[in-house]
Amino acid sequence: MFIARVTGSVVSSTKVSSMTGHKLMVVEPYRLEEKKRKSLVTTGRTFIAVDTLGAGENDYVLVVQGSSARLTPETKELPIDAMIIGIVDQVHIDKASVYARKDEK
Amino acid sequence: MFIARVTGSVVSSTKVSSMTGHKLMVVEPYRLEEKKRKSLVTTGRTFIAVDTLGAGENDYVLVVQGSSARLTPETKELPIDAMIIGIVDQVHIDKASVYARKDEK
Amino acid sequence: MFIARVTGSVVSSTKVSSMTGHKLMVVEPYRLEEKKRKSLVTTGRTFIAVDTLGAGENDYVLVVQGSSARLTPETKELPIDAMIIGIVDQVHIDKASVYARKDEK
Amino acid sequence: MFIARVTGSVVSSTKVSSMTGHKLMVVEPYRLEEKKRKSLVTTGRTFIAVDTLGAGENDYVLVVQGSSARLTPETKELPIDAMIIGIVDQVHIDKASVYARKDEK
Amino acid sequence: MFIARVTGSVVSSTKVSSMTGHKLMVVEPYRLEEKKRKSLVTTGRTFIAVDTLGAGENDYVLVVQGSSARLTPETKELPIDAMIIGIVDQVHIDKASVYARKDEK
Repeated sequence: MFIARVTGSVVSSTKVSSMTGHKLMVVEPYRLEEKKRKSLVTTGRTFIAVDTLGAGENDYVLVVQGSSARLTPETKELPIDAMIIGIVDQVHIDKASVYARKDEK
Repeated sequence: MFIARVTGSVVSSTKVSSMTGHKLMVVEPYRLEEKKRKSLVTTGRTFIAVDTLGAGENDYVLVVQGSSARLTPETKELPIDAMIIGIVDQVHIDKASVYARKDEK
Repeated sequence: MFIARVTGSVVSSTKVSSMTGHKLMVVEPYRLEEKKRKSLVTTGRTFIAVDTLGAGENDYVLVVQGSSARLTPETKELPIDAMIIGIVDQVHIDKASVYARKDEK
Repeated sequence: MFIARVTGSVVSSTKVSSMTGHKLMVVEPYRLEEKKRKSLVTTGRTFIAVDTLGAGENDYVLVVQGSSARLTPETKELPIDAMIIGIVDQVHIDKASVYARKDEK
Repeated sequence: MFIARVTGSVVSSTKVSSMTGHKLMVVEPYRLEEKKRKSLVTTGRTFIAVDTLGAGENDYVLVVQGSSARLTPETKELPIDAMIIGIVDQVHIDKASVYARKDEK
């Protein structure tokens, strides 16, 4: 999995029928900033992931890729390859906090 | 999934028999432009995806990769790893529109 | 899938037994040249794909990756992750031809 | 699989229900340093992997990606794409040790 | 699949129980050298693959990735994503030999 920030959403009216009603979020994968190792920074990539947890913009989330995106009751028959499986509360690296959800509110 | 622009098509007459009759589109994955974050830009990559939705050139589409490309009635037995699952109407990032289909017409 | 040019072949005598008799081709993924967008150029990568269609050197082919490489009668039990599913006749991008098989003959 | 160093952990309280109780570790993939080929160095990437082996920070581990992350009794129904399948004791490359766990203690 | 050179091995005593007894080799993916196109060169990446064929250091091998690594009798229940499926004897590109196993002995 990777950590990503939710930054937007996609609207599609013409789509494969099984996709009707599923929320499509824009997520940007993040990685540890390499020099100081104190914060998360964007990788510059843009993915679209299905959300069933009510994630909102600016939430940091855990995204699963590939066939495992179909391993939940809501997604098991969907033609999807990325899904939000958790909203991140805290990330600790090198025994220090590099992200805490409360800090952002 | 990723957002891509449909830019062309592929013709192949000698192919695996199950692929007969399936439309093969050239799609170029797009990502958010990193500096201003106001538009989508090409990643410079070129993929081929199966289309069952009637997507046309210059349409922005959602592309699923991997085994999930086989999770629709039309594609379930096909040897494919990329499929168009939706035609994109709108993309919002940072609460602003970075793509709207009507703008292009 | 991606478009690739067949540039060679691999011989392996010590191999997993199910692989006996299968042709292994060297394929180099191609992408659209970014500046003029009029031709296909190599990505510089080198993959090995199973061929069941009789593709020859310099043929441009469609390659499927991942578990879908097993979705044909000849390959369904093979430990492979890449297969040639079509020989490309023509590629059109931006309404112009960027590759036509006859041009090369 | 790839070798990674465990550098942290992730806390997520709002998550897909099947993920409850599973440890999520931050892992950074390592590769051989290219010039001298005597040590392992970070690739600068950041992944999240499930741990069932009790791996701790600074442990070097083997990480499996994709659907195979579900091929253990503890993970077979989970929506995950990365799992720690071993804690690394030693890595030998070019007949020399490039990592030994005891060195680090 | 990709061509790789076997450059080392990994020892792991604490591991998922099904992995007991399986050989873990360090493999470095190779690609065609781009300028002269006469030899194979390393990509600089480092992967770990299961070996059931007795591959030794400096052997060039074919590596399969993903779920297909489980498509052999010895590996079908293993949590692995990379396996050596052949030891390479010869690679021909542009009708010339770019690798022959006997040359190296």
